[in-house]
Amino acid sequence: MSHARPGDMVLFIAKDRKRYLVRLTEGGTLQTHNGVIQHDDIIGEPLGRPVQSHLGVPFLVLEPSTEDLILELKRATQIMFSKDVGHVLMKLSVRAGSRIVEAGTGSGGLTLALARAVGPEGHVYSYDSNANALKIAHKNLEALGLLERVDFKERDIAEGFDETDVDALFLDVRTPEEYLSQTRAALKQGGFFGAIVPTANQVSELLDALARFAFANIQVEELLVRPYKTLPGRLRPMDRMVAHTGYLIFARPVESPFGQMIGHGAGKMVWPPDAPAINESEED
Amino acid sequence: MSHARPGDMVLFIAKDRKRYLVRLTEGGTLQTHNGVIQHDDIIGEPLGRPVQSHLGVPFLVLEPSTEDLILELKRATQIMFSKDVGHVLMKLSVRAGSRIVEAGTGSGGLTLALARAVGPEGHVYSYDSNANALKIAHKNLEALGLLERVDFKERDIAEGFDETDVDALFLDVRTPEEYLSQTRAALKQGGFFGAIVPTANQVSELLDALARFAFANIQVEELLVRPYKTLPGRLRPMDRMVAHTGYLIFARPVESPFGQMIGHGAGKMVWPPDAPAINESEED
Amino acid sequence: MSHARPGDMVLFIAKDRKRYLVRLTEGGTLQTHNGVIQHDDIIGEPLGRPVQSHLGVPFLVLEPSTEDLILELKRATQIMFSKDVGHVLMKLSVRAGSRIVEAGTGSGGLTLALARAVGPEGHVYSYDSNANALKIAHKNLEALGLLERVDFKERDIAEGFDETDVDALFLDVRTPEEYLSQTRAALKQGGFFGAIVPTANQVSELLDALARFAFANIQVEELLVRPYKTLPGRLRPMDRMVAHTGYLIFARPVESPFGQMIGHGAGKMVWPPDAPAINESEED
Amino acid sequence: MSHARPGDMVLFIAKDRKRYLVRLTEGGTLQTHNGVIQHDDIIGEPLGRPVQSHLGVPFLVLEPSTEDLILELKRATQIMFSKDVGHVLMKLSVRAGSRIVEAGTGSGGLTLALARAVGPEGHVYSYDSNANALKIAHKNLEALGLLERVDFKERDIAEGFDETDVDALFLDVRTPEEYLSQTRAALKQGGFFGAIVPTANQVSELLDALARFAFANIQVEELLVRPYKTLPGRLRPMDRMVAHTGYLIFARPVESPFGQMIGHGAGKMVWPPDAPAINESEED
Repeated sequence: MSHARPGDMVLFIAKDRKRYLVRLTEGGTLQTHNGVIQHDDIIGEPLGRPVQSHLGVPFLVLEPSTEDLILELKRATQIMFSKDVGHVLMKLSVRAGSRIVEAGTGSGGLTLALARAVGPEGHVYSYDSNANALKIAHKNLEALGLLERVDFKERDIAEGFDETDVDALFLDVRTPEEYLSQTRAALKQGGFFGAIVPTANQVSELLDALARFAFANIQVEELLVRPYKTLPGRLRPMDRMVAHTGYLIFARPVESPFGQMIGHGAGKMVWPPDAPAINESEED
Repeated sequence: MSHARPGDMVLFIAKDRKRYLVRLTEGGTLQTHNGVIQHDDIIGEPLGRPVQSHLGVPFLVLEPSTEDLILELKRATQIMFSKDVGHVLMKLSVRAGSRIVEAGTGSGGLTLALARAVGPEGHVYSYDSNANALKIAHKNLEALGLLERVDFKERDIAEGFDETDVDALFLDVRTPEEYLSQTRAALKQGGFFGAIVPTANQVSELLDALARFAFANIQVEELLVRPYKTLPGRLRPMDRMVAHTGYLIFARPVESPFGQMIGHGAGKMVWPPDAPAINESEED
Repeated sequence: MSHARPGDMVLFIAKDRKRYLVRLTEGGTLQTHNGVIQHDDIIGEPLGRPVQSHLGVPFLVLEPSTEDLILELKRATQIMFSKDVGHVLMKLSVRAGSRIVEAGTGSGGLTLALARAVGPEGHVYSYDSNANALKIAHKNLEALGLLERVDFKERDIAEGFDETDVDALFLDVRTPEEYLSQTRAALKQGGFFGAIVPTANQVSELLDALARFAFANIQVEELLVRPYKTLPGRLRPMDRMVAHTGYLIFARPVESPFGQMIGHGAGKMVWPPDAPAINESEED
Repeated sequence: MSHARPGDMVLFIAKDRKRYLVRLTEGGTLQTHNGVIQHDDIIGEPLGRPVQSHLGVPFLVLEPSTEDLILELKRATQIMFSKDVGHVLMKLSVRAGSRIVEAGTGSGGLTLALARAVGPEGHVYSYDSNANALKIAHKNLEALGLLERVDFKERDIAEGFDETDVDALFLDVRTPEEYLSQTRAALKQGGFFGAIVPTANQVSELLDALARFAFANIQVEELLVRPYKTLPGRLRPMDRMVAHTGYLIFARPVESPFGQMIGHGAGKMVWPPDAPAINESEED
């Protein structure tokens, strides 16, 4: 059984579902509206058990999941949701040993998941032009002991990335279509490219640019998570859910002579061509 | 730029979207209805480029993503979809160094994603009572060079798991509610439990059992992936999508005295209590 | 161009999206936090234009849609959402001249849509055991001038319905499976049966009972509405959506000798049998 | 109990779920791969019961629902799905007595639902430039005895509609944004406008035009129907579902002076302004 140590991140869950993500320090305290909790009551003890505040109110103490960390870390900006992060890891083939570039860093939610996934053998290069966001992300990764797997770089990525031949590259920026030249320079041929954008218009812009820059196997997907209430005899979805976080786009940079075949103009084609439509009218 | 070597898994994509997942061997061939491809035309060369069959038909050759591997590997049974696998990795906090138990193995789709995620420092213990499924999963993991990170065990898990104090445990079996005692014995207190079941009735059964076995922070979720067509000027979802793969259930085993507080009987409660309903009628 | 008359229901939409559903009366006023509006400023004038409060704040005045009416009418209970109501009209083949039974009445949201759809030639029989709900529904239908198409009945439907041979019957009650005998007595053979329930457990209960009571062509469906933001250059779904209103169940009462064939026991079958599964494992 | 008469549309459902929509004629026959059925075996008898083909194979005979009619009628083109049709009826406030314009007619699926909803007091004006589609729609409506409620017009709607001051107008055409001038001329001020388009790009085009033509209360929505398997003890969604039929757009034409306030240019605004975003980053 693992025991809590100073420096560990732990999650307190109160009866009212309020959650507190805390880094344990000797002598530290957590102030809540249900009373004060002493970190020393947790340090040295196993997790997965209740602790009481000085008012006698119980809190459940748990190791946070990767999703908990993403949700609860200090935020500079809109975060990527865990559902999208997990899918991106699968699509970009991120694994122990991978070398990954991402921009922008934002609050570091994807960064921390990437850093966990690439392990000590891999590395993450995370770019953002916003110094404040980088500072917050740096603190977040530091709290998790993951700093040695990540290089944070304050940079307008229009100037390009320092790395070459990386395994995967992910863009969470406003106009990803403007950085495909820089992307191709950093990403190995046949590597894994991904992006997230909030609007359909941005998807169209990016799709257009991807074809011009000889990306193939282009995929666009949305993920929806539907949470349920958990009473066994009254199983049903929650009343409300997140309807949209972003459109995910994935593609593979391919050899240029081949790339010349692809695109949407005359004599060109996307590769592979779009699946034949089912039940589709001619005018569509 | 990385070059293909004998033993590498590569993905061939034909113009008709047909996909071939192949392990390269010197002198090997891939037979397709569009002609024969010589492995030696790929070995030693970079990926992300076209090769031609003896009939002159081009194929795109790529490194497969984790999703591609899951989709295209040899199957013994229904597989877990990549969207669910990625989400499970986030929810179970799987990362470099994790020790994970899973049952059943099935075709090894989740197994391979877990093996990639835990890295050389971690380990996966994968149980199945079906010898044939284990054989196929073994071959699949072997082809990816991941065997040293996985122990396959032919076992009816009613007899229990060999491991204790593992970080996470995932059940993809018909009646997960019957194995919670075994689960608690293998999983560390406060660890990460997950399961997938196809029917709502099974969710109810499992939720009921989880409360009895002192699991807290119970969550039930569905993931939906909505794929889009990729013409920039005609952006729209595909006509059809997968409507259901399974319900995902997540929970944390907690200390028993605390666990005694939780449940659904008189004087009991789940922890945390279910979120207050929005817009809900009294009879619901 | 139609002009507003006393007695008309109109919808005021404020700049802050707040909506006010109002029945116009000569000399009447609408009090808002953005000032007072005189009904007489609307009466005799065309709709689809702005009026100003005494503070000079503009409001758009519109004829309410059926959805607006359902959403904005005075409520006794949880309402059925418009998306479900529209689907029910299609599934129950409700049309000018139909005779329909519904229980419970609730706030009369479905009642008003049914009354609009059956026209002066048809009729709606609406049952509820809750006198207060009936009172509110009565007022709502009266305000729309639809009372002559509806009979409200305060009744525990365990005692049965007064009507026979009706075209369609819809149950929005807690335990619809308990009233199938009464339903069969009121609904013509081959007629249209529908129900809405909030939980999966209730669906199972009802499905089980429908087979025993010789209902065929059973269908279970959920409807999800995904609303979008409406900026042309930034098209994207809203951030949040309603995740669940209820499960809709539809079925047809069929002749008993035929009905004896159907069910889930030995030598029985549902009609038509469930569609063959796609990509389904054996254990499912 | 209602009995089948010559001229009635009935639906035969075979054990293999194959469905046959048939208009009964004395002496008529239905040929199926499970044998021949004599219409005379149905005429004069109640529905909701089985009949046997000459091979002794049973078929269930039912009155078709509005959805069945839409799905099974003879098609010239892609049809609107029942889920969308029902929602449109609610959003356009279609009811007994309404006067409605639609274009294009297509196969008449929406036309028949509109004709059923407006009753003998209302009327539907249905435009299409495709003579063949109109011919098929005409036959479909004739078979249902609804011709007297519908005027079909072969016309390029760029030339305008004949009607004025109609209650609602629906466009199911490729470029609805090109016909808003004609729409405003036909539709009463404050009336109900709707459209369906398959692509996100078309939604953007239409939204842009609606603001220029002084439409307010603009809404964009998608509907998803999720069908379930109906085994009570194994409740679960079907494996596959329709992912997309079209984007639905609704709006209200408002008085021009007011309309001048609205739009997206300098000093303009849509009415009401888009809902404030939840959890949204600045750059979105």
